[in-house]
Amino acid sequence: MTQPHELTASEAAREIDAGRLTATALVESCLERIAEREPEVQAWVRLAAGPARARAKQLDAGARRGALHGVPFGVKDIIETFDMPTEYGSPIYTGTQTRNDAACVALMREAGGVLMGKTVTTEFANMHPGNTRNPHDTRRTPGGSSSGSAAAVGASMVPLALGTQTTASTIRPASYCGAVGYRPTWGDIRLSGVREAAGSLDTLGLITRSIDDVALLRDVLLGRPVEPLPAEVRKPRIGFCRTHLWSQIEPSTAVLLEDAVKRLAAAGAVVEDITMPAGFAHVLDAHRWVSSFEFTRNFRHEIVNHWEQLSTTLREGRLKDGLGCSWERYVEAQHFLAGLRAELPGVFGDCDLLLTAPCDGEAPIGIRTTGNPYFSAIWTALYVPCLTVPAFTGPNGMPIGAQLIGRPGHDRALLDAARWVHDRLKG
Amino acid sequence: MTQPHELTASEAAREIDAGRLTATALVESCLERIAEREPEVQAWVRLAAGPARARAKQLDAGARRGALHGVPFGVKDIIETFDMPTEYGSPIYTGTQTRNDAACVALMREAGGVLMGKTVTTEFANMHPGNTRNPHDTRRTPGGSSSGSAAAVGASMVPLALGTQTTASTIRPASYCGAVGYRPTWGDIRLSGVREAAGSLDTLGLITRSIDDVALLRDVLLGRPVEPLPAEVRKPRIGFCRTHLWSQIEPSTAVLLEDAVKRLAAAGAVVEDITMPAGFAHVLDAHRWVSSFEFTRNFRHEIVNHWEQLSTTLREGRLKDGLGCSWERYVEAQHFLAGLRAELPGVFGDCDLLLTAPCDGEAPIGIRTTGNPYFSAIWTALYVPCLTVPAFTGPNGMPIGAQLIGRPGHDRALLDAARWVHDRLKG
Repeated sequence: MTQPHELTASEAAREIDAGRLTATALVESCLERIAEREPEVQAWVRLAAGPARARAKQLDAGARRGALHGVPFGVKDIIETFDMPTEYGSPIYTGTQTRNDAACVALMREAGGVLMGKTVTTEFANMHPGNTRNPHDTRRTPGGSSSGSAAAVGASMVPLALGTQTTASTIRPASYCGAVGYRPTWGDIRLSGVREAAGSLDTLGLITRSIDDVALLRDVLLGRPVEPLPAEVRKPRIGFCRTHLWSQIEPSTAVLLEDAVKRLAAAGAVVEDITMPAGFAHVLDAHRWVSSFEFTRNFRHEIVNHWEQLSTTLREGRLKDGLGCSWERYVEAQHFLAGLRAELPGVFGDCDLLLTAPCDGEAPIGIRTTGNPYFSAIWTALYVPCLTVPAFTGPNGMPIGAQLIGRPGHDRALLDAARWVHDRLKG
Repeated sequence: MTQPHELTASEAAREIDAGRLTATALVESCLERIAEREPEVQAWVRLAAGPARARAKQLDAGARRGALHGVPFGVKDIIETFDMPTEYGSPIYTGTQTRNDAACVALMREAGGVLMGKTVTTEFANMHPGNTRNPHDTRRTPGGSSSGSAAAVGASMVPLALGTQTTASTIRPASYCGAVGYRPTWGDIRLSGVREAAGSLDTLGLITRSIDDVALLRDVLLGRPVEPLPAEVRKPRIGFCRTHLWSQIEPSTAVLLEDAVKRLAAAGAVVEDITMPAGFAHVLDAHRWVSSFEFTRNFRHEIVNHWEQLSTTLREGRLKDGLGCSWERYVEAQHFLAGLRAELPGVFGDCDLLLTAPCDGEAPIGIRTTGNPYFSAIWTALYVPCLTVPAFTGPNGMPIGAQLIGRPGHDRALLDAARWVHDRLKG
């Protein structure tokens, strides 16, 4: 029998609405699951078991609050919460308590969501990892920077968690942890109350266990009426986009993707190979300079006042890049990326979505690094909506996602078409 | 003899660099000026006289830190500072202390700037005013929402202050207080550590007493090398843009602007009348829905938890609009504004900049409202760089600015051309 903690958010909300499940029972089931897995997974910076129970009881006693009534969720620890500290994965900010909720958290609570706690982030959503482990093999990284959010959802501790993405911070850990990860079109979902890393690249990231849940949570965060995805959509036209990184992919993952394309074609999708224009091979360089320059500009306070408390990873990586990047190089990189974004319609042609790898394969062994970010960073820099769905099992039994890319501003069309794809790949 | 507090930032930095002035003497002069004017102007939420003196002493004893070495500045109280509270103009946040500096504050301090204190903001940078009065006539409003920043600079208490602008919050108070106000191209100067009002419209605002200071501070905030404006520029081609609001302008202000256009033409500028396409008459409606919808979405935490502590002005104004705005209306307004932005090249034609009114005239009597925002809101919604420079004296002896508008992303070209204009109008 399905345990409550195994339900998706949409399923759980439906059960609660129908009176077949209580918020309390769902929260208790999630807390039991957390008690069982957390000692080895370490997804949480802090849990709020007491407040979550109290909130569930209150919800059970009252009228339906909204689309997330009784649904537990986790929040990456760079996102502010009025009732528990936000520490940004840095010893500089140990115990820091803000007075407000980030807008995204307030919107989820207003819709009836139950905040279960704060999830582990790498230091300032950058590369220096926390102690979180991959729930499918605790010798392996969960990916980052939204490490705890992806691990918590992947381990069925909560059905929903918030992350962010500036490079690969949602898509990569979601793929590694067997979760659905969604990065919206840049600028669509605002980040009020979320610590900025590199503003011209940052977005919120949504981590769930179904595409329906992405649609649900996206509607809540946009402040629009919730509209479920349609039951039927026409068969999509899919562009298979290997990108210039194809040689970096694990051979077994390449085989899985090539095979998936054949299965989708057999199921009736039109699939064509997409070759990106040559300029796209330089997108990662441009991303590196833009993200490093902006990150370094944003973290001036920490650089000047807390240099010794920053990790060597950060100082020798992002900050070294940023401090060494001239204004001219930054501006050139910005213009270069703007030019590539203008070329996107030609890349898509008449495809509904692109299919590509979310990362180079299974989560690597070790938790001192968070894995190859490039397969995700390309798309981050292009401002397109990105979705990874669990699609494959690698040679070591680890989950691997398929990444689906939509046109900028057409996130909903991406979700519609992606569900068709995901249903075929699961089946 | 010029007192140190009367110097612009560029002049003061030059004097300090040449050894003819110390940071300590400048800070003391500003503190004396504040002691003299603050009881009636009330520009400051809190002053940091002790820390400012200590900082000046430290700067005088050490090597040159950067382009703002020893220059005092004020910061609007929605911008975070690690060493003094940020209260957002709301009783909800009395005494709220953050652990970090906003990026803009950290960059100014790193360049040697001396933080003098936090300046009065309207409630959450919206319409409900604080107690600040116009330094040129304390019966009159300083404008808002960056009320204290504009009053402090206009009263020569500090040469520089930071504000923000979502509607008219920098350009209007700068014009009313006789200061230079600058709103950058949307997105150019990031807002990390600044409370978001309506993210798709918010920018930082710079308030100074010269265009050279705008250029200087802009370079510091962008993290780029400081490059002074050129001494000579070619005579600009100016578009005189009355806008559809011309009938709302005070007749005496209209006469001053019409006369200024004649003087600029006599000085050798090419001036032409610009008529905006009919659609631009609806820009204010669209601005209203976008700003209200986003503001209401961002302030969910306060709406749900602190409704009684919000002002009636806010509840019956922005929040009523936002709660009553449908998703469809919001999206339609966003698309409408995007369409107008795409029409801007045609509006500019071959003009280097547009000349228009920053507000309807002199600051009105009374401090319970902050004046007519529309003359500024039009341009806010269009993402263009905006600058107001003190240019006129109204019938009641109050300062009135001339607003100069540049092409999106061409802020530096706007400043170059604007200085030519300002020099002619002053002369």
